[in-house]
Amino acid sequence: MRFTSKKGLLLLMGLIGIFLTACGNLQNADLSGNTSSNTASSKSAAYQITGTTDGSQYSALLSDGKYKVSSSRGLTVDQNSNNFNVASFEDGLTTISKQQFSPDKYAFQEGQYIARTTANSWLKRKSSSNADGLNPEDNKQTDSNKRAPIYLQQILEQDYLVHSGSTYKLDGMAIGLGMNSTDYYQKVQYGATFKTTISRADQEKQGKEMAQKILARLRQKKELANVTIVFGLYEQAANDSLVGGTYFAQAVSKSGTTLSDWTSLKQENGVLPVVNNEKAINGGDSDSFNNFKSKIQSFFPNLSGVTAQVHYENDSLKGMKIKITTQFFGENEIRSFTQYVGTAASRYLPANVPIEITISSVGGMQAFLNRDSGEKDFYSHVFSSY
Amino acid sequence: MRFTSKKGLLLLMGLIGIFLTACGNLQNADLSGNTSSNTASSKSAAYQITGTTDGSQYSALLSDGKYKVSSSRGLTVDQNSNNFNVASFEDGLTTISKQQFSPDKYAFQEGQYIARTTANSWLKRKSSSNADGLNPEDNKQTDSNKRAPIYLQQILEQDYLVHSGSTYKLDGMAIGLGMNSTDYYQKVQYGATFKTTISRADQEKQGKEMAQKILARLRQKKELANVTIVFGLYEQAANDSLVGGTYFAQAVSKSGTTLSDWTSLKQENGVLPVVNNEKAINGGDSDSFNNFKSKIQSFFPNLSGVTAQVHYENDSLKGMKIKITTQFFGENEIRSFTQYVGTAASRYLPANVPIEITISSVGGMQAFLNRDSGEKDFYSHVFSSY
Repeated sequence: MRFTSKKGLLLLMGLIGIFLTACGNLQNADLSGNTSSNTASSKSAAYQITGTTDGSQYSALLSDGKYKVSSSRGLTVDQNSNNFNVASFEDGLTTISKQQFSPDKYAFQEGQYIARTTANSWLKRKSSSNADGLNPEDNKQTDSNKRAPIYLQQILEQDYLVHSGSTYKLDGMAIGLGMNSTDYYQKVQYGATFKTTISRADQEKQGKEMAQKILARLRQKKELANVTIVFGLYEQAANDSLVGGTYFAQAVSKSGTTLSDWTSLKQENGVLPVVNNEKAINGGDSDSFNNFKSKIQSFFPNLSGVTAQVHYENDSLKGMKIKITTQFFGENEIRSFTQYVGTAASRYLPANVPIEITISSVGGMQAFLNRDSGEKDFYSHVFSSY
Repeated sequence: MRFTSKKGLLLLMGLIGIFLTACGNLQNADLSGNTSSNTASSKSAAYQITGTTDGSQYSALLSDGKYKVSSSRGLTVDQNSNNFNVASFEDGLTTISKQQFSPDKYAFQEGQYIARTTANSWLKRKSSSNADGLNPEDNKQTDSNKRAPIYLQQILEQDYLVHSGSTYKLDGMAIGLGMNSTDYYQKVQYGATFKTTISRADQEKQGKEMAQKILARLRQKKELANVTIVFGLYEQAANDSLVGGTYFAQAVSKSGTTLSDWTSLKQENGVLPVVNNEKAINGGDSDSFNNFKSKIQSFFPNLSGVTAQVHYENDSLKGMKIKITTQFFGENEIRSFTQYVGTAASRYLPANVPIEITISSVGGMQAFLNRDSGEKDFYSHVFSSY
């Protein structure tokens, strides 16, 4: 958890003014835009990709001698925000994109077509001075159930390109919309924080309408008239959640301005061990984790914590991220522990599921183990120095 | 470097009172000992090892239901100490041990035969109240060249066991002696710090005499009368060094109390890029690193630092640990960068050498790449969350 809170602090300290978010949460949302008139498909300058792919990850395009970051990449910068939302919003959109744009064929580029000023105006409330705002007009109510909440918290564009002659040409795009399940607001500036809870049904209704509007706007750009555009609707986890949110709907537009055929996605994130008599998403997986946990704690008493994030799709476990916090200092103690964790993980944790295990002390990461999808054994590495 | 300084802080805060060191540097060195009368070879209780080995790493013995930490593990706890010394002192002794005690045959256990009180009295100066002190008597001089310095800074025992029937039996031991190249001292309590420089010749002379004394003391114990004991002499790096020290001599005693046949070890550690017109240990390796560095910096401008620790034995490069510090935040930016680093590392960095590359932001480690000895491709992993 330390990792997260520090990352949060960093975002607060360093990034205000760089990233975009709904204006309900960002005081100074009117950032000067660099209008990023993209030319990826019109230049024949030196293109390069970051490396070859085995088909499971994208290669990224390096153009004009640089890796281009997205001008519209949206992060939540308010103090209470949940950084897990930031990571899983982006990772999840990439995962959705892989179904449509195979990494074997497509190279990745961060979104270059929605300019920063544009995304910013979309994220703000609709008003007389901001006709393009996707969030509803302020109805001047402050009561939790009467006010018009900020539905859309963040927006993300990803570009997918195909090799064409000596250059790369835009052929696909993915747009993620981060929908608030809880909208945090103040009644007076610097005042107490209140919440408006937004139902899944409302998130879905609002998200689909917004996606429809965005599609129509994007199709007006000549370069985007005929590219395949994938939309994903993401439910933001609450600020106090120990996992990020999940995608709950997706739709594909091959051409035209009508977005129909939405597909529901059944994804769930959870934390193990469960506490306060809560129920695990899957009791068997929870038992497996508890066996693993008690086994390693019985032999190595100097452990401060063993927790896991679990991710489910259509009720099956799709991955575990386990964090082990230690009070170890000796190199051989870490090596021995890492070896033992590998043995215990193979024996007790669910098979055929990707599992990442990090072993950290307060000084940083000491070791890690990983088993990718389809692999039988854990790869392990202990960090060391000369 | 952050990692290190925080680890240092931690050691200061949490560990004073646990570990042992020469009394010249530890104020409160008289720790109550747990006398650790070891019984690893006499009990038939449940033994278990931490996992199977591929022959490159030891399996560690778990006995009495626990991983046993060494009672005499020696760490330097004074404020200015160099934590790289702590890690490489321990790792280096394990490496020396592998030549004598093959990981295929031997299991590892942290030192259990030199009790904490014993090691502590050995590390202190010889005096009327401490006849066993290995460091010289205080000659009451405070002048840098006239005083008797603390030669021995830390001591480490490692045990190596063979499977015997239903149990494990001690069959080998390794003893590391950490010899100061610079002894830091105060003329008055809480006063300014002064230094006495100790030549390699003096370190070697003193270290060999101390090893001889230790051998004679160990052979008096019945359980140690006939085990093979390996000694390693380690030169501590200065407190301001960005790498740890190296082992410079080793000797093996199969039996008896005479230690002869010392073998010199030619090891060197360095840092890249070299600064202040210093000369790299090997110009070609330095050029390779600089090519790699400038290549990744040209495509990814948001890098704060790219540095490497290099380790040489008999003038050949034996390994590189590269630390890259970034200002990245997006998941895909990290993934793309990691892929590109793998491409550039394969192309520009020296072949056939183990290389570890960590990619960190101030929030912690974001990704890492590793190529072990004999491998062609880099393994890479990007840390993520749900």
